[in-house]
Amino acid sequence: MKVLLDLCVVPLGVGVSVSEYIAACQRVLKEAGLKHEMHMYGTNIEGEWDDVMAAVKKCHEVVHQMGAPRISTSIRLGTRVDKDQTMEDKIRSVKQKLSNPGV
Amino acid sequence: MKVLLDLCVVPLGVGVSVSEYIAACQRVLKEAGLKHEMHMYGTNIEGEWDDVMAAVKKCHEVVHQMGAPRISTSIRLGTRVDKDQTMEDKIRSVKQKLSNPGV
Amino acid sequence: MKVLLDLCVVPLGVGVSVSEYIAACQRVLKEAGLKHEMHMYGTNIEGEWDDVMAAVKKCHEVVHQMGAPRISTSIRLGTRVDKDQTMEDKIRSVKQKLSNPGV
Amino acid sequence: MKVLLDLCVVPLGVGVSVSEYIAACQRVLKEAGLKHEMHMYGTNIEGEWDDVMAAVKKCHEVVHQMGAPRISTSIRLGTRVDKDQTMEDKIRSVKQKLSNPGV
Repeated sequence: MKVLLDLCVVPLGVGVSVSEYIAACQRVLKEAGLKHEMHMYGTNIEGEWDDVMAAVKKCHEVVHQMGAPRISTSIRLGTRVDKDQTMEDKIRSVKQKLSNPGV
Repeated sequence: MKVLLDLCVVPLGVGVSVSEYIAACQRVLKEAGLKHEMHMYGTNIEGEWDDVMAAVKKCHEVVHQMGAPRISTSIRLGTRVDKDQTMEDKIRSVKQKLSNPGV
Repeated sequence: MKVLLDLCVVPLGVGVSVSEYIAACQRVLKEAGLKHEMHMYGTNIEGEWDDVMAAVKKCHEVVHQMGAPRISTSIRLGTRVDKDQTMEDKIRSVKQKLSNPGV
Repeated sequence: MKVLLDLCVVPLGVGVSVSEYIAACQRVLKEAGLKHEMHMYGTNIEGEWDDVMAAVKKCHEVVHQMGAPRISTSIRLGTRVDKDQTMEDKIRSVKQKLSNPGV
């Protein structure tokens, strides 16, 4: 089962700036070999369910190891069995509708 | 690693009423032996990371098997290494503050 | 337009314990006269869109006034135009399916 | 109060393909004159709280008018009073940490 997942990890108890923890999660995703793309409020990830979820768990482990006593994460995730859909497909589908408003 | 997780599964392509799919997820959680409690916009689950995540995956599998071609799920999840905290602890902590506003 | 909303306010930069901030948000919702119910990972709120959103804004203002320099909030919200649905209706609908699995 | 918001609108009861509804929301945000950027699982928006929330409400109104009887939306939103931060600032901050891992 493939999954498209949007991950937002929020470390608590480490002050107001959290970018070094987010950077560490980017490294986890890169090392996992997963297709991923950071945006302003999270990181989109594409892959097999078990691989993606293992990376999410690893992010929590790494952020705790860096010293964050508590983490509150928000995730959106989508699966579908009617067709195979990539990150790019989702974006392209909306952009086509935007360029052909009459269709 | 223990996790407190708030799961909201939204099946797409099955019409406007989704309660039978949510009921199926409740059964998955019960069969998994996980502590869980449904609320108006999701279900809170408490347990070991791998057990809880296995149940979340099973929910997706079951909802697809019931005929939903697409699922969009939203999850909040918290881990902490400074102390062990249950669902009840979180609620109790806020209620104590509400009853002792001067403290 | 009525809305059912699930609000989870996470203050950053105030340490690991955030229950006093959540308690303050409960008071905001009570003073706003909105139907609301706290659960382990958020608070469900029911009301007219503008009233509920005014209360969400007020929660942010109050939590900042209490000293939190940064807040990261996660919200789920549902609207429907096919029928009027309360918090209790949603829960009841799933529980009926659970007690009548053959239907 | 400025807000950075990540909006994901999920229309229910309109079948499995929802891209035309997402495209309509993009037009709402453009007409509102708000800085926004679509990603794979939502759209990031930056602006004054009231302006951004008015656009979110307008998205719900438009998607209902297009025929969706029910909408389930997920939102992440951040406010901070310690400094002014744009979408680009958040991304840049993480990228700096990634390019200077020793710092």
